[in-house]
Amino acid sequence: MSEMRLGLYVVTYADPARGFGHMDVAAAAIEGGADAIQLRGKELGGRELHGLALRMGDAIGRSPAGGLFFVNDRIDVAMAAKADGVHLGQEDVPAQAARSLMSAGMILGISATTVEEALAAREDGADYLGVGPVFATPSKDDAAPPIGLEGLKRIREAVELPIVAIGGIDADNARRVLNAGADGIAVISAVTGAEDMTGAVRELRLLVDDCLAGR
Amino acid sequence: MSEMRLGLYVVTYADPARGFGHMDVAAAAIEGGADAIQLRGKELGGRELHGLALRMGDAIGRSPAGGLFFVNDRIDVAMAAKADGVHLGQEDVPAQAARSLMSAGMILGISATTVEEALAAREDGADYLGVGPVFATPSKDDAAPPIGLEGLKRIREAVELPIVAIGGIDADNARRVLNAGADGIAVISAVTGAEDMTGAVRELRLLVDDCLAGR
Repeated sequence: MSEMRLGLYVVTYADPARGFGHMDVAAAAIEGGADAIQLRGKELGGRELHGLALRMGDAIGRSPAGGLFFVNDRIDVAMAAKADGVHLGQEDVPAQAARSLMSAGMILGISATTVEEALAAREDGADYLGVGPVFATPSKDDAAPPIGLEGLKRIREAVELPIVAIGGIDADNARRVLNAGADGIAVISAVTGAEDMTGAVRELRLLVDDCLAGR
Repeated sequence: MSEMRLGLYVVTYADPARGFGHMDVAAAAIEGGADAIQLRGKELGGRELHGLALRMGDAIGRSPAGGLFFVNDRIDVAMAAKADGVHLGQEDVPAQAARSLMSAGMILGISATTVEEALAAREDGADYLGVGPVFATPSKDDAAPPIGLEGLKRIREAVELPIVAIGGIDADNARRVLNAGADGIAVISAVTGAEDMTGAVRELRLLVDDCLAGR
């Protein structure tokens, strides 16, 4: 495991109608200097996801800045693609089962909406938490109600694991999220909704660096 | 790996509207004496599939007859549930990648519709082939056009791997399928479409035994 920098964490999303796929988002994230990229391809079958994970992992590995590569949901695809880690939601394979399959060096991220879920994830061997949705988000139609900065703070006080906040985070509210105790921000729409995706990542990069410089 | 008997191979299917789930089909398969059961839960998320795989594997393991337990598609779930093997279609994670993740004792089944796919699957480390669809089938809406007994025979002549024929197989045509060279039959609708699922499995059991006795 390389040093786990999760300050700016980009989650991929594909919208063929708007002319971009997962690799376009990943390319912008790499170019813009994201610390971590998560391939989240719920709509894809195993064959396609596996091929995409290989290409994405390769692109990240070849970039000078490096960065961590995560695969959402499919532990098998993450392992086959030699990703740095897996990110699992509460509807995915339980954390404990995932941990037992993964090599010790692989990073396990678990989504948590409540303090209870956060404590359980820590108990089950999570290396970091994806905490949210902090704000309402257009990117996940099955998302839980927003927990707000208060919900984020409650989880921050309860666990010492690195926290990547997610859900409706953009350049306007990122500072408040980081000041509430998150170690990083995960973004989808803030990048994919921008005309210039790379520019959006760069802007967030500067903001996150500025915000975390004091820690 | 226990001796690989695949003569009667039941694939699970859930139809809540008709009042049965995957475990009901598995229970009938166990009770009726199937050689192998494949949990095929494409509609399920990882959490649900994992829980179901644990319960199903446990039920099969506790049955006096034993029988092999396969999980469709998700190699990670199969491994976490300590299934005997994984069955992968052509749209799932490639066989070679799957093989590299699985312990040597785990069985890898690969779906093949053509001789080319069958040869590639053998090359990539498949332990058996699921060959079909032999006949038209109501159970898979995304199935390829039927290959018929002729298609099955062509694959039989091309590879020596065990072949489990699939697709529209029932008590009326099973004998012809086995006589065409299949080592086993995989059934879905022939079981789930029956009033008495256990009875349907028993009938197929007798038929398969009778047909394979001469080999």
